[in-house]
Amino acid sequence: MIRKLTLGFLLFASVVGYTQENLNFNQQKEIVSPQINADKTVTFRLMAPNATKVELQGDLLEKGTAPMVKQTDGVWTFTTTPLASELYSYSFIVDGLKMRDANNVYQIRDVASVVNVLIVGAGKADNYLVANIPHGTVAKRWYNSPGNNGKQRRLTVYTPPGYESSQQKYPVLYLLHGMGGDEEAWSALGRTAQILDNLIAQGKAKPMIVIMPNGNVSQQAAPGEDAKGLYKPTMQLPNTMDGKMEETFTDIIKFVESNYRVNATANQRAIAGLSMGGFHSLHTSRFYPKTFDYVGLFSPAIMPFGKTTSPVYENFDATLKNQFNNGLKLYWIAIGKTDFLYKNVADYRKKLDGLGVKYTYVESEGGHTWANWRDYLMLFAPQLFK
Amino acid sequence: MIRKLTLGFLLFASVVGYTQENLNFNQQKEIVSPQINADKTVTFRLMAPNATKVELQGDLLEKGTAPMVKQTDGVWTFTTTPLASELYSYSFIVDGLKMRDANNVYQIRDVASVVNVLIVGAGKADNYLVANIPHGTVAKRWYNSPGNNGKQRRLTVYTPPGYESSQQKYPVLYLLHGMGGDEEAWSALGRTAQILDNLIAQGKAKPMIVIMPNGNVSQQAAPGEDAKGLYKPTMQLPNTMDGKMEETFTDIIKFVESNYRVNATANQRAIAGLSMGGFHSLHTSRFYPKTFDYVGLFSPAIMPFGKTTSPVYENFDATLKNQFNNGLKLYWIAIGKTDFLYKNVADYRKKLDGLGVKYTYVESEGGHTWANWRDYLMLFAPQLFK
Repeated sequence: MIRKLTLGFLLFASVVGYTQENLNFNQQKEIVSPQINADKTVTFRLMAPNATKVELQGDLLEKGTAPMVKQTDGVWTFTTTPLASELYSYSFIVDGLKMRDANNVYQIRDVASVVNVLIVGAGKADNYLVANIPHGTVAKRWYNSPGNNGKQRRLTVYTPPGYESSQQKYPVLYLLHGMGGDEEAWSALGRTAQILDNLIAQGKAKPMIVIMPNGNVSQQAAPGEDAKGLYKPTMQLPNTMDGKMEETFTDIIKFVESNYRVNATANQRAIAGLSMGGFHSLHTSRFYPKTFDYVGLFSPAIMPFGKTTSPVYENFDATLKNQFNNGLKLYWIAIGKTDFLYKNVADYRKKLDGLGVKYTYVESEGGHTWANWRDYLMLFAPQLFK
Repeated sequence: MIRKLTLGFLLFASVVGYTQENLNFNQQKEIVSPQINADKTVTFRLMAPNATKVELQGDLLEKGTAPMVKQTDGVWTFTTTPLASELYSYSFIVDGLKMRDANNVYQIRDVASVVNVLIVGAGKADNYLVANIPHGTVAKRWYNSPGNNGKQRRLTVYTPPGYESSQQKYPVLYLLHGMGGDEEAWSALGRTAQILDNLIAQGKAKPMIVIMPNGNVSQQAAPGEDAKGLYKPTMQLPNTMDGKMEETFTDIIKFVESNYRVNATANQRAIAGLSMGGFHSLHTSRFYPKTFDYVGLFSPAIMPFGKTTSPVYENFDATLKNQFNNGLKLYWIAIGKTDFLYKNVADYRKKLDGLGVKYTYVESEGGHTWANWRDYLMLFAPQLFK
């Protein structure tokens, strides 16, 4: 009987046997791309025998693009110079048409586009890579927001290793995305779980819960994850910087503090965000006094553009001064030297200096990039809840 | 002060202001693709002014491919005939080069390739779409497998709406992927969370926990999610069908039953899987007597290919007969008429008939496809734990 039944497995075991599957694996000639070499150069390959011009485009190239060279077998190749340890993104441009690398399954959506990514390790980016250490849990969960018409909204929750098996209460970092992002941005592009796992395993950061909400109050969830279906995402959404996110932030805090084992005190709460999320962090932490003792502004926007009637932005100076005089432990601002928000942040620092309050300022190379925001998280998280 | 600080926002609000971001959103001409029309036809568009030939390829085309037509603005288009409600996948082939649709951020990895997907609703696929109903939580979590050298391994957990806020104990469905898949396959391609949310909201299925483990015992986690880094995935892995998965399945059950509020009895445990996961379900449920009262075999493989010394496959007939005589409530087998495993399953049915045991058999159209496996889950889940 066993002999009889195993016959089909000659087929089953073969690649051909799987051509019935709709969403099939790649049947092109076996090509490895990208290939990260021992000297930290990276080789890219694209099989395109009919193409007349192929370029590589990505943030790993100083000039932004580089010509690829056609080999006799129809494969176009390019090898970079040795690269700094980092997460990079890239595309191919084939006869003017931008396309992704069919041989690289690793890619991340950012707003309305998807790019291939690679990580060059043996350096800083080892903090983004998965190591053989205890891992936290990442959950996509829904909460009710009474302040937002009772909408169900989705957030991402990182609970640290050991959370489920302990009775301990944990501190919470609320970590906010920028414009065009959503509750998936920090976990995908920001590699929050990997960074926290590594920092905690190394004893550099305290075990903490990280809450990554969706900062677009008009949205229930990331594109494709709510009842609007699989629509095309857009960069700009209504009501992102008009006070509504800050006004309804207490819905998130209440949900977290009644659903997770957390210490519900200001010295066990941190809030940080990038760009628009820095803006939300700035105003949320100021609007709710004695709520967050740790604040992180990563390449932050500072003030609302356009008119808003929200009470969130009233009495700015008084509430700001009040915030600094009420037990605040860390007010951490970071921005890149070439960031288009650099001037805004410089002006804001002047204002803080004028008020005579104490904050930490970090100026990095580079601009408004996820490379910087991952670095900022790695610098910020170890300072929390000490 | 506010006036001064808001100036930067003219830039901030503009699309141009975001060109600093590495992983930038799409700056091509605004194109919608795919566009699902009211009559359930779908229009595809690709801007490729330099291309000489563009084809659409996908499971929504009867012939598999169709030529796209170039418009005067350089956009190639194709509109299908009205389609049945389903999740479809597709690619473009531009001058012989397969590429994804840059205007569609929705895509799913299956083993070593990534394909764009779309969902035509207003029919069966509404069960896969997110509705305005209560949603369960989906978590990626790690457990320790003592039977597998103490490896940390990753699994996906669906907990139903209300799980966190109740004191209730829940039944558990263990849901297993096929060859080349991993702990992400059922939640991504199988749309398990959406299907369960919908079935539960409609009162068709009992609220249950669904555990989606990784069935490749040589792997800790899906590609990119363990310490092996961002390597190129392959279809075939060692030790997938040699008994090791079944032998270490108790590690998963123990983890689940000590970490979740579950009823730890056979009549509150179900196990089901597709293809290789059907094989794992068949043998695991037989190898551990009185453990699973509900068994689902979706397009299952039946017997190991090649030699194995595992005790799992010994005493097949006796243990099988024993399984049916020990309170089993449902033994559900489904396969498509054109599935390459059809003959194997037919032979297995003869064997079951010979043993005189009672099982349910469903024969569908189609082959070895996710379209079928999603359907099977929708048919199977409502029969559980009644």
